[in-house]
Amino acid sequence: MAVAHARVSRNDAGIALAVPLLKQRFGERCDTGQAMREQHGHTTTWLTTEAPDAVVFVESADEVKAIVDICREHLVPIVGFGVGTSLEGHVNAPAGGISVDFSRMNRVLEVYEEDLACKVEPGVTRKMLNEYLRDRGLFFPIDPGADATLGGMAATRASGTNAVRYGTMRDNVISLEAVLANGEIIRTASRARKSSAGYDITRLLVGSEGTLGLITSVTLKLSGIPEAISAAVCPFPTVEAACNATILTIQSGIPVARIELLDEMQIRAVNAYSKLELPERPTLFLEFHGSEAGVHEQSEAVAAIAEELGGGPFAFSTRPEDRSRLWQARHDAYWAALALRPGCAGISTDVCVPISRLAECVEETRADLAELGILAPIVGHVGDGNFHTLVLLDNDDAGEREKAATFIARLSERAVRMEGTCTGEHGIGQGKMKYLRAELGGTVDVMKAIKTALDPDGIMNPGKIFY
Amino acid sequence: MAVAHARVSRNDAGIALAVPLLKQRFGERCDTGQAMREQHGHTTTWLTTEAPDAVVFVESADEVKAIVDICREHLVPIVGFGVGTSLEGHVNAPAGGISVDFSRMNRVLEVYEEDLACKVEPGVTRKMLNEYLRDRGLFFPIDPGADATLGGMAATRASGTNAVRYGTMRDNVISLEAVLANGEIIRTASRARKSSAGYDITRLLVGSEGTLGLITSVTLKLSGIPEAISAAVCPFPTVEAACNATILTIQSGIPVARIELLDEMQIRAVNAYSKLELPERPTLFLEFHGSEAGVHEQSEAVAAIAEELGGGPFAFSTRPEDRSRLWQARHDAYWAALALRPGCAGISTDVCVPISRLAECVEETRADLAELGILAPIVGHVGDGNFHTLVLLDNDDAGEREKAATFIARLSERAVRMEGTCTGEHGIGQGKMKYLRAELGGTVDVMKAIKTALDPDGIMNPGKIFY
Repeated sequence: MAVAHARVSRNDAGIALAVPLLKQRFGERCDTGQAMREQHGHTTTWLTTEAPDAVVFVESADEVKAIVDICREHLVPIVGFGVGTSLEGHVNAPAGGISVDFSRMNRVLEVYEEDLACKVEPGVTRKMLNEYLRDRGLFFPIDPGADATLGGMAATRASGTNAVRYGTMRDNVISLEAVLANGEIIRTASRARKSSAGYDITRLLVGSEGTLGLITSVTLKLSGIPEAISAAVCPFPTVEAACNATILTIQSGIPVARIELLDEMQIRAVNAYSKLELPERPTLFLEFHGSEAGVHEQSEAVAAIAEELGGGPFAFSTRPEDRSRLWQARHDAYWAALALRPGCAGISTDVCVPISRLAECVEETRADLAELGILAPIVGHVGDGNFHTLVLLDNDDAGEREKAATFIARLSERAVRMEGTCTGEHGIGQGKMKYLRAELGGTVDVMKAIKTALDPDGIMNPGKIFY
Repeated sequence: MAVAHARVSRNDAGIALAVPLLKQRFGERCDTGQAMREQHGHTTTWLTTEAPDAVVFVESADEVKAIVDICREHLVPIVGFGVGTSLEGHVNAPAGGISVDFSRMNRVLEVYEEDLACKVEPGVTRKMLNEYLRDRGLFFPIDPGADATLGGMAATRASGTNAVRYGTMRDNVISLEAVLANGEIIRTASRARKSSAGYDITRLLVGSEGTLGLITSVTLKLSGIPEAISAAVCPFPTVEAACNATILTIQSGIPVARIELLDEMQIRAVNAYSKLELPERPTLFLEFHGSEAGVHEQSEAVAAIAEELGGGPFAFSTRPEDRSRLWQARHDAYWAALALRPGCAGISTDVCVPISRLAECVEETRADLAELGILAPIVGHVGDGNFHTLVLLDNDDAGEREKAATFIARLSERAVRMEGTCTGEHGIGQGKMKYLRAELGGTVDVMKAIKTALDPDGIMNPGKIFY
């Protein structure tokens, strides 16, 4: 499939000057080996790998600043790298340049227990953080499935299965430290829970995909581990019925922690991959957080809604092992789906629509898949109106690639027509640049004006978000 | 008190050209009468009134665009006006220019019941909206006390008593339509509940105080009216005990809808003004939202915490009339406080600190008030770490003005030292410009770069936020 690259061109002369300077400054922590470079331009998706010219393993904000200063002087691109779980080519280096690897900046700097907050270096992953926090009765709720770094999650405005209750990275970042293109190290906000002190630069950097600055610390909201957690599974006769049950649940104000749709094809994949025996029907996976009484009240309310819509049986469990098995299966949905067609490639789509349009959007999308003859199971964070299809294709078959491109373009157009977005949580990166203007029109020019103001030389992750 | 104005200068020649053009375009809806102009440059605070040269009553985004186009051509300032409840001089026109009055843009454009959302014109006030929504079982939770317009609340990132549970305007605006300085009308986001589609321009405009654009419609999240609402009042032996009870409540994850502190002086004022008979001690006013069982569970949990900290008696009520009386008294706290010293002026401060520092910050502030001999009752949205002192002063007494200025500067410095902010919800406006850099350092330069990029001629509300 043709990759929608921004028109960025390579500055060979600058790169030839900058790399030796970085070698001198960072020694073995500046790696120009081919395997390392390719791994840092590799994405778990259909986009072509575009390797940087060097990978630098940083250990502090001052080191990041040193790289930025060298790269600015020689007009060399800088691409941030967490663990590389991006699906939209965020870590690619279309014009070459330096990949800044944050894996050594992996310390939890502070836990502010009384404030339900913490400050971490950007290379801390969400699982590392939750492991660190467990004994204190606190957790960080955002869960995109992959064990992504918190810097990367902030940079791409990640969310995932818990967002319906706990929000996205937008809602859970209190403050950031970042190195800007001009080499300044800024702190975007105080630690106060709310503030009206000028423009919201925190929210501007969250989701900016490394194009405005490199995040060097993240101050996050935490939540108390709930007194009780329970899980439930409920099959439905149709995808529409499952979507409608979701809509009613949200409208009723039931504070579900997770409400995930898997269509019948995805259930078949999960059964095979995770050794489950779920009925092969569209199914909701749910999780409830609260007091013992609260989780029972919530699950009874959802069970009643499900029954009203022809769903059931509603299987409820408070046993941690049942819950872990269920959510592990949900997290493995991507791998389970790939196993439906051995050797295939997978392209994950990511539209999000107002929940009132969800059933309609999913149904139209399924009809389109059937018409095009594409194999693509569906999973969705349906409480937010967000769902993914995983298009399974033979990437060497031009006809299949063409069909997939047609499908994805139609899906984006459909989401925008239904007042939604082409990306609920994966970001624009390289993969969705061509859909952004259809969605937001002149707002894209505002973004570009800000980009030009803060990074006039275009050194921060060029070729991402907009042309 | 000296007013910390930005260095903005008046363009008499441009104003002399623009006003007749606006008169021609808008007829009687362009008002240059002195009373109307002064009312539009009037703030309910200590700042000097600075009237615009004309007030235009707009009826559509296209009309706003027409004003912006004329003002840009003649380099004339444009100041948005909702109902004028700002406390920090946001509606002042230090370099003259045009006040754009949104009171005629007061239609609820859409209610998306299934999506728990609505779209309104900027001149709709929160009470108008809630009146409109009541029969549908929905409400808009943000409540800053004053019946402000939703455009103004978005522009200043307002919050208030419900923010501890429902968030601030930052969290409750889904999308905005706005007219930029270049005359473009943009829509900042889709209606999807979450999105990773590029920079968060919605959040950039929320809190930008009219300095980047004029908001012409607001798409908002709504909430279902809770099944049960109850209120409670609980006195404490000390302010510290009340703060500590608040901290424990938040840490325990109890989803209180409101938790407000009134110190003993404020209780005395409220008793006199609202004819209540509360014990004259530091007191928490609380509200609980949820199911019948849920609100009882919540209030019992808070009552237990209060008792542990020496508070009580904990008076709980589910009667709507008790609740209304209590919250009306809370909302009238400003007027009640002013009545403590007839004829005085009032300056409301607005710091917000991490909740772990709240008791310490309030105590140091009270000691400072005592040392300076300033009369200033305290009310606070303590669940967020946000509190206000209302400095009661004779504005004609230079010594009192001087003392008040000393107090406010020390308070801002104290909040910043405790990792908090000089403004939790009132905004920077004119009044707090001098404190912003101490709080955010080089982040202010990022704001200025964005301002210059989007409003190169500086016509959008000049003299606000930064110098």
